[in-house]
Amino acid sequence: MADPVPVAGFAATVASAVARTGPLCAGIDPSPELLDRWGLPDSADGLRSFGLRCVEAFAGAVPAVKPQVAFFERWGSSGVGALESVMAAARDAGLLVIADAKRADIGSTMEAYAAAWLDPQSPLAADAVTVVPYFGIGALRPALDLAAASGRGVIVVVRSSNPEGRSIQEAKTSGPGGWPDGPSVEDALLEAIRDLNHGGLAVPGTVGAVVGATLAPSQFDLTGLGGVILAPGFGAQGATAEDAARLFAGCRAHTVLANVSRSVLAAGPDPGSLRRAAAATGEELAKTLP
Amino acid sequence: MADPVPVAGFAATVASAVARTGPLCAGIDPSPELLDRWGLPDSADGLRSFGLRCVEAFAGAVPAVKPQVAFFERWGSSGVGALESVMAAARDAGLLVIADAKRADIGSTMEAYAAAWLDPQSPLAADAVTVVPYFGIGALRPALDLAAASGRGVIVVVRSSNPEGRSIQEAKTSGPGGWPDGPSVEDALLEAIRDLNHGGLAVPGTVGAVVGATLAPSQFDLTGLGGVILAPGFGAQGATAEDAARLFAGCRAHTVLANVSRSVLAAGPDPGSLRRAAAATGEELAKTLP
Repeated sequence: MADPVPVAGFAATVASAVARTGPLCAGIDPSPELLDRWGLPDSADGLRSFGLRCVEAFAGAVPAVKPQVAFFERWGSSGVGALESVMAAARDAGLLVIADAKRADIGSTMEAYAAAWLDPQSPLAADAVTVVPYFGIGALRPALDLAAASGRGVIVVVRSSNPEGRSIQEAKTSGPGGWPDGPSVEDALLEAIRDLNHGGLAVPGTVGAVVGATLAPSQFDLTGLGGVILAPGFGAQGATAEDAARLFAGCRAHTVLANVSRSVLAAGPDPGSLRRAAAATGEELAKTLP
Repeated sequence: MADPVPVAGFAATVASAVARTGPLCAGIDPSPELLDRWGLPDSADGLRSFGLRCVEAFAGAVPAVKPQVAFFERWGSSGVGALESVMAAARDAGLLVIADAKRADIGSTMEAYAAAWLDPQSPLAADAVTVVPYFGIGALRPALDLAAASGRGVIVVVRSSNPEGRSIQEAKTSGPGGWPDGPSVEDALLEAIRDLNHGGLAVPGTVGAVVGATLAPSQFDLTGLGGVILAPGFGAQGATAEDAARLFAGCRAHTVLANVSRSVLAAGPDPGSLRRAAAATGEELAKTLP
């Protein structure tokens, strides 16, 4: 059933960007191997050059980029400085920036992560940040509220695309009687996200979910989520556009972002080739995603 | 039952430090509120001063410090630069450094986080780093192997001290028949950590667990874990030394680190007062911890 609540907040921002430039969220993943293949040094300067070439190539061709924070963090403060430059360039180029930081904590520490990635004054301010819900969805509240306050988003890793995550994410929560007959961990999280997007937060559409395109559907009806879905697992991990079409059928138009990194970045370092790879991938995905 | 495998690797490093200076792992948590109370600016310089004062006060009085990465990340690359200075000073002062980063990811991204926090050449190299297991314990393998290679540690958040985490961490995994009659998520993780410390990794004692001191015991027998236990939840969160004594009874001597942050830091900024608060807290905890 189509979502009865109008898309707003971060989900509306994504929907209008996807309507213009397709559903591809292009990863910026400067791994040591890719730096080498692009002829760049494995250093903060190499990271910066890699990221700026991506921004140049992807601007106007995709709606969003997703810098993978870990690759910048490898070089400590100088790597994080390179990330700041790349994020600023992406913003200036009109790209949405999803910081793939997968942060997680509780209390005032979660507040600090929220401030780092979502406070408009922060040097690392992104349009959205990925977070990990092991401490419970309630522990993420400081990030959710801060995102809502400026139309930004929080994307919760719910169903990861790797096989090792299944036993935790499919574990059964307790039902009302104390027996393990409640929803699975992942479905309980999706239910909580749906509720946050339908009145639980000041701005609907603030909270999104990572749902791996490699997975079979769970019991939760994704069409009612009310937030952005970020779908990894394409390319090397084996998901096809057809898998995604099945998994996301009926979801609100233009709110599913397909994350593709390696297969697009393999076309670099020439910006023209990178841009063509991104455009072709985005066109292919647009045929089947909602 | 006492652990049959001799403590080695990171667990041995911790045990010998705790034998000398007690079980307190002192948090370095420069929250905006504490910076203000210490008369320091909320800036990268303020973070650096705060951290260096902590190192000066804690050196020789506690075995380990735990900088809370989020508070440094709030100031982007300059904050991370301050963290590098603080970590270097702590190392030089003979303190073990546990980077409380709570990182999580899969594949080459997890490799990059491992390199950032555990590669001896990294500007952020720590003696151990905290990680979050939502992607499964298998996804953490790059960090575990890298830690083992240089006698460092990985501390997995298993049982967090906040109430919001209970429904996920107590969810039931599938048993052999596919029914939810396997161990809870947290106990399955503890079993996996025990196995890693007993032959699953090149160096036993590499993998530790966060076990909140606020919690009742689970089904898993912690005395056989074979790795360090980091226990948060004291002070503001309400756990007492008696709670910890019950929960960790029988664990190998000197392998349980009690994390205390706020109540010790409240004694600052005077280094003498800070040091006395840390020493008094450590002595109190040493009475009941194994």
